[in-house]
Amino acid sequence: MVGELSARTAEGAALVTLAEQHAAEFATRADSYDRDNGFVRDNVDAMRASGMLTATVPAEHGGLGVASLHDLAVAIARLARGCPATAIVANMHLGFVVEAARTWRRLVAAHGGNGRNGRNGAEAGRLALLLRLLGRGRLVAHAATEPGGNGLALPTTEAVRTPHGYLVNGHKTFVTNSAAADIVVVFLRIPDGPERYRHGVAAIRRGTPGMRVAENWDALGMRGSGSHDISFVDCQVPADMVRVGEQVGERFEAMWPGVLAVNFPLAACYLGIAEAAYEAAVNAARTRRRRLTDSPLAEWGAAQLQVAEMEVGLAAARASVSRTGTRIDAALGAGDAPGADETDRLVLDFQCTKLIVTRAAADIVERAMNLVGGGAYRTGHPLGRMYRDVRAGPFMQPYAPNEALEFIGRVSLGLDPYAELRGRVSQRV
Amino acid sequence: MVGELSARTAEGAALVTLAEQHAAEFATRADSYDRDNGFVRDNVDAMRASGMLTATVPAEHGGLGVASLHDLAVAIARLARGCPATAIVANMHLGFVVEAARTWRRLVAAHGGNGRNGRNGAEAGRLALLLRLLGRGRLVAHAATEPGGNGLALPTTEAVRTPHGYLVNGHKTFVTNSAAADIVVVFLRIPDGPERYRHGVAAIRRGTPGMRVAENWDALGMRGSGSHDISFVDCQVPADMVRVGEQVGERFEAMWPGVLAVNFPLAACYLGIAEAAYEAAVNAARTRRRRLTDSPLAEWGAAQLQVAEMEVGLAAARASVSRTGTRIDAALGAGDAPGADETDRLVLDFQCTKLIVTRAAADIVERAMNLVGGGAYRTGHPLGRMYRDVRAGPFMQPYAPNEALEFIGRVSLGLDPYAELRGRVSQRV
Amino acid sequence: MVGELSARTAEGAALVTLAEQHAAEFATRADSYDRDNGFVRDNVDAMRASGMLTATVPAEHGGLGVASLHDLAVAIARLARGCPATAIVANMHLGFVVEAARTWRRLVAAHGGNGRNGRNGAEAGRLALLLRLLGRGRLVAHAATEPGGNGLALPTTEAVRTPHGYLVNGHKTFVTNSAAADIVVVFLRIPDGPERYRHGVAAIRRGTPGMRVAENWDALGMRGSGSHDISFVDCQVPADMVRVGEQVGERFEAMWPGVLAVNFPLAACYLGIAEAAYEAAVNAARTRRRRLTDSPLAEWGAAQLQVAEMEVGLAAARASVSRTGTRIDAALGAGDAPGADETDRLVLDFQCTKLIVTRAAADIVERAMNLVGGGAYRTGHPLGRMYRDVRAGPFMQPYAPNEALEFIGRVSLGLDPYAELRGRVSQRV
Amino acid sequence: MVGELSARTAEGAALVTLAEQHAAEFATRADSYDRDNGFVRDNVDAMRASGMLTATVPAEHGGLGVASLHDLAVAIARLARGCPATAIVANMHLGFVVEAARTWRRLVAAHGGNGRNGRNGAEAGRLALLLRLLGRGRLVAHAATEPGGNGLALPTTEAVRTPHGYLVNGHKTFVTNSAAADIVVVFLRIPDGPERYRHGVAAIRRGTPGMRVAENWDALGMRGSGSHDISFVDCQVPADMVRVGEQVGERFEAMWPGVLAVNFPLAACYLGIAEAAYEAAVNAARTRRRRLTDSPLAEWGAAQLQVAEMEVGLAAARASVSRTGTRIDAALGAGDAPGADETDRLVLDFQCTKLIVTRAAADIVERAMNLVGGGAYRTGHPLGRMYRDVRAGPFMQPYAPNEALEFIGRVSLGLDPYAELRGRVSQRV
Repeated sequence: MVGELSARTAEGAALVTLAEQHAAEFATRADSYDRDNGFVRDNVDAMRASGMLTATVPAEHGGLGVASLHDLAVAIARLARGCPATAIVANMHLGFVVEAARTWRRLVAAHGGNGRNGRNGAEAGRLALLLRLLGRGRLVAHAATEPGGNGLALPTTEAVRTPHGYLVNGHKTFVTNSAAADIVVVFLRIPDGPERYRHGVAAIRRGTPGMRVAENWDALGMRGSGSHDISFVDCQVPADMVRVGEQVGERFEAMWPGVLAVNFPLAACYLGIAEAAYEAAVNAARTRRRRLTDSPLAEWGAAQLQVAEMEVGLAAARASVSRTGTRIDAALGAGDAPGADETDRLVLDFQCTKLIVTRAAADIVERAMNLVGGGAYRTGHPLGRMYRDVRAGPFMQPYAPNEALEFIGRVSLGLDPYAELRGRVSQRV
Repeated sequence: MVGELSARTAEGAALVTLAEQHAAEFATRADSYDRDNGFVRDNVDAMRASGMLTATVPAEHGGLGVASLHDLAVAIARLARGCPATAIVANMHLGFVVEAARTWRRLVAAHGGNGRNGRNGAEAGRLALLLRLLGRGRLVAHAATEPGGNGLALPTTEAVRTPHGYLVNGHKTFVTNSAAADIVVVFLRIPDGPERYRHGVAAIRRGTPGMRVAENWDALGMRGSGSHDISFVDCQVPADMVRVGEQVGERFEAMWPGVLAVNFPLAACYLGIAEAAYEAAVNAARTRRRRLTDSPLAEWGAAQLQVAEMEVGLAAARASVSRTGTRIDAALGAGDAPGADETDRLVLDFQCTKLIVTRAAADIVERAMNLVGGGAYRTGHPLGRMYRDVRAGPFMQPYAPNEALEFIGRVSLGLDPYAELRGRVSQRV
Repeated sequence: MVGELSARTAEGAALVTLAEQHAAEFATRADSYDRDNGFVRDNVDAMRASGMLTATVPAEHGGLGVASLHDLAVAIARLARGCPATAIVANMHLGFVVEAARTWRRLVAAHGGNGRNGRNGAEAGRLALLLRLLGRGRLVAHAATEPGGNGLALPTTEAVRTPHGYLVNGHKTFVTNSAAADIVVVFLRIPDGPERYRHGVAAIRRGTPGMRVAENWDALGMRGSGSHDISFVDCQVPADMVRVGEQVGERFEAMWPGVLAVNFPLAACYLGIAEAAYEAAVNAARTRRRRLTDSPLAEWGAAQLQVAEMEVGLAAARASVSRTGTRIDAALGAGDAPGADETDRLVLDFQCTKLIVTRAAADIVERAMNLVGGGAYRTGHPLGRMYRDVRAGPFMQPYAPNEALEFIGRVSLGLDPYAELRGRVSQRV
Repeated sequence: MVGELSARTAEGAALVTLAEQHAAEFATRADSYDRDNGFVRDNVDAMRASGMLTATVPAEHGGLGVASLHDLAVAIARLARGCPATAIVANMHLGFVVEAARTWRRLVAAHGGNGRNGRNGAEAGRLALLLRLLGRGRLVAHAATEPGGNGLALPTTEAVRTPHGYLVNGHKTFVTNSAAADIVVVFLRIPDGPERYRHGVAAIRRGTPGMRVAENWDALGMRGSGSHDISFVDCQVPADMVRVGEQVGERFEAMWPGVLAVNFPLAACYLGIAEAAYEAAVNAARTRRRRLTDSPLAEWGAAQLQVAEMEVGLAAARASVSRTGTRIDAALGAGDAPGADETDRLVLDFQCTKLIVTRAAADIVERAMNLVGGGAYRTGHPLGRMYRDVRAGPFMQPYAPNEALEFIGRVSLGLDPYAELRGRVSQRV
């Protein structure tokens, strides 16, 4: 597709090629998954077979070693052209893995990563184990959101230390992949003194007693993504499957590298939808005639202007994904995690990109429907599905659009973007 | 609802009250009809029972005698707050009837309308008969659109004169009410010499052999509207059920009074959706707290700005419906049909209103979803349905948005808006 | 102009006719006043001679008796087509007078207004005197804004009671007409106990010692409006020229009838600019050819779409002025002043209209410049002036756009729109 | 400035540093040049002294050797932060020079460029001579536009061969730098048989008889740019100062490398204006309090959202300049000129970027004025000047916005973007 983004690394280029091949196939069943509201299981199997599912696993552990979020974003956009639900399924998994791999590489670089060097070494060892599992094709779900919104900054799902590990209780929602995930990664809190908590992440295997997947995903769009609720009732998790992190309410910046790994390429999903909508419109314009005037649709001035506005939207979205992806790669690729200010700015860039892409995508789908005409309103027309799929974008946390604008505005104005959160945390103490 | 439109005539006020009562009830089953894709039969029955279905029938023939398109538009907007699919169902029927009644009144005023005064008298008699039927609660469907778009200006569905009446052949699509209509009104052409046609309108009773309703309505939204395709294969229609009109390709302005009667109040349907979306958002903002900050959603500056932009959109949409409705009533209420130039300007006003309303409505639904958050994306949430219903607006002919802009632009610039059509018609001859 | 607004009262219609005649003449010197930055003195003289300046004075006092703000708005829009600076000059005067006349009528209706019936009677007498002066062609300036913004709700300009009347001190800015006004109406506060104030309005005659007009108006646009700063240093004003009003910080709603009388028709000024820009664009499109293709500009699809979008913007702006004007007339025309809630809603309507009109106007000027091409960028082209004049709209208080949205949002959400102000006033006490 | 673009080459980085230094100084006199409508002569002198004016001259000829249009665009954006008029002055010169240098390098690479190798060698020799002049600080003006628009594709200014060279006749307009240029580069046509022409470019020295600079530049903005009209009446030019090019009407793609060199960095000028407006707004928000509420402006939710939308606009504009600049550098840096299809796509990218940047810039200036408030409307406030300067963007050819959209739409739809032009040229023959 003329003007499309391309990968910046060799590994990324291989992934993008895989994504393109899958997209062509997945496009043929996107509407069927959408109609039946079933999880895109065959697509996941195909991606496992092709090596796409292990693309972000380091080569040492059996993957392609894709480490660039820019390139992952490009691949997700390609996949989304064929099937947006599959694109977010792949993304939630690949994004988690790319961050696990990054952390593992960092620990290994610093400590040898063989488990003999204290806490960081143990962490590296655990990650190596996990990456090896992932290298064999295990699928990950990402349980972050809680009822009411963002469940990352102040989670209420809780893991309490017991002699045998942790007992997890709580509720997560919009858990893409939960329909089929082998491992559910849960963002939660761990009591750490009176009214104090630490952030924690638990990796819980499918079938662990006390974890129940509600099989209740039924939404406007992204219907094949199996994004069920999950509840945890006294769910016992081994201690070495739980990572204990920062104090809740301190160093909010620490959560972002992991979030960006998942959510930045996720934003590119909407670029892919926009590209598919654009192609549908251009194809219609090039092959159809206007009924009343019996003249080629493409020769109509109004059609040309609509297509042009779509190109302008695509140009802005692609450029923004490209620039921000490159910046994120640079910031996260460097050894140390970026500091609070640099992270704020990186998140600002990401939020701008997400707004640019999701706004452009919605606008492009809208224009495409107008060009294609009434047929696009009938069930089964891909543009009707895209209209519903594309609407998921603004809901995806963090942040929703108004929150994103507030974050961007506060950072730009030199204000603490977490001021309210901090106030609330300190009130609790 | 503060700021809402109100009727300008006493009959209209009665209709608006009925519409409000129905809307409250219909709201409770809107999502169920949407899910099941079934025709809103119970709602039609309820409107028949309440007298709403006969509201635009003259009092002489058993109706409420509502003659104002402004007031009809207000009523349709009210109904759409509860159930947009039912609103368009009611509209296609009521709009047809209001125009039939207007024509009947005009003929009666000019000729006595008792059937004894030549062709116009016969027409008045036929209309009186039809209005009496309608006064007893018969439901009308409006078969205008043909595959590929607008089927009014240059229809291809054809009625050929036979000794026994007319034989109708052709295909209509997006025929709202076809699921249950007692009478299908078909816009078609009648051969009138070599390569020449006249416009014609046939009223065909349900069950007439050769008319087949495809039961194939299944769309992104407006799912309860029963807008199936209808095909006609050698469908025999009595001669007195066919009205022969203008030469095709001449006096395009003549079609507009009938179109405006149906399509102007139809545009107000989207105002009703917008009002319902606004209310859903305001209710959410007034009753919910932000999860992360635990503060009232309504106190959030961003929420206030979103609601404010919704108010601005509503203000523009309401004012435009109000002003254009008043102008249409004035233009059509006068005895003679408006001339070509006045009609062009009236259509221009209508197209502007339709664009203002449908754009504002889409924008308001979008903002409402952002305010309500992820819950609005789940199947069963009214805003998800509204997001799909509201998208029908731009598809509704005549005109689609780009065509509307072209029409407006050409009229404003003093150019013939039908130049291409005329060229095509004359080429055929 | 097809589609334009028209007056609803006979007196208003006479005023609109006057405004149209003036506009044609004033258009010929608008660019010259703009270039020279001089006050539109000749235009004021012409409006005095024609009776336009006294149009809102009651007939009893020598005027036309225009009482409808709707009609005044229509007249201001007409005037603005010719010269926006003159339109705001006329508006600040006529709007003040219409409110003074309304108050006088109300007092007379209640009390006979002959000065013999206590405080209200005295007020009626004073107003009668003022109206008689105004009926002879005196020009009023409206000194409200203070450096930093809105000077109505919490003025800092102060009038202190002395044995001989009041001593006024303070500073007002953006005082349109101050270049030539015979009477300057100053919105100020009057001490009323420790840390307590009342609102006050002083009518100060030109030449009163202590009042200095800075002759410093020099702005991006509206250059002929003579909107200088005015400073007051121990300016002695007779007691009967000062009206003492509400406690500052209480009954904010009481200020709005006076504000609406001035600011609602003011918003219509931007409709007039938009109409003039539209006409310039349409004239260009109808008379010019595209250089490269040597084809008529009007036949270009892109030109048609631009003009169409202008029509859509005009339609929304006109409808909104019309509906809100009618509502304001109804609310203020009734005997009693509207209550707090009704006033909030009226102000909400007004703020929506102002946003709709000023946004549409800026957009229309922008599109017109694009249609006309590079010539519009040269000094002396009316569109270049309109581009500067139209930008005054969002600055005009109350409210600036972001404040307006906040006000609208809070009222819609059932929150007190003056909460912050009240908090501030009570802190002072 | 956080988030700003940076150069990709070492030479470019040096140029950007120079531009930043100049911008700081030029900002102090931008308003004075604007008020006096005088050419920014001191700024040109300063840029000559610093080496900025010779930055795109190859090092061999005394310049910095900047060859990247990406980097030139970044430098122009920087300069525009201080003084947009100076930025376009510098741009029209530097852009011409960078293209001359590119051509020279290409010829030298192919032929040795010493003038001994036929026509191309002669051309290389002429260019070397010109570049040496430019290396000494000569200023170039670019005479392309003709009354009515784009004068590149079908110029009417004409050079006729005589025994002594060429006689030039015609009229050019909007010739930035014409106030002071040492060399005026004129795009014209040269008769080549009956009704046939070739494109030509003449380099005419200041003071050549028959060339008259009208000293008539007086515009809404960019007032310091000295963009006068120039007329040519029997202006005698030596033959070796005229380059004869393609047949008019053939190979339209051949004009674009030269146009992109000038017009791509020119688009970045508006990014610089946007950045300056953003800074003005952020500074105001960080330092000022809201008058009525006496609270910090930056803490106001509405202010945060405005600033956020500015950031989103800047992000899109910067990313688009960055991506398109990189693509143009890649396409033009390669030895051979790109073919017709690749050129169309490159121009499409450029037109998208220009639309993205100029739309974002206008929006950002608008929001900044709203944040700063009424003071921004007074003459002398930088935002008022930016409001006028930024409006130049859409006028700058090729293309004006509607033409740009048409070009983009046609290329996207696989249609010849020059179809109308070709039709017109062939008609003439």
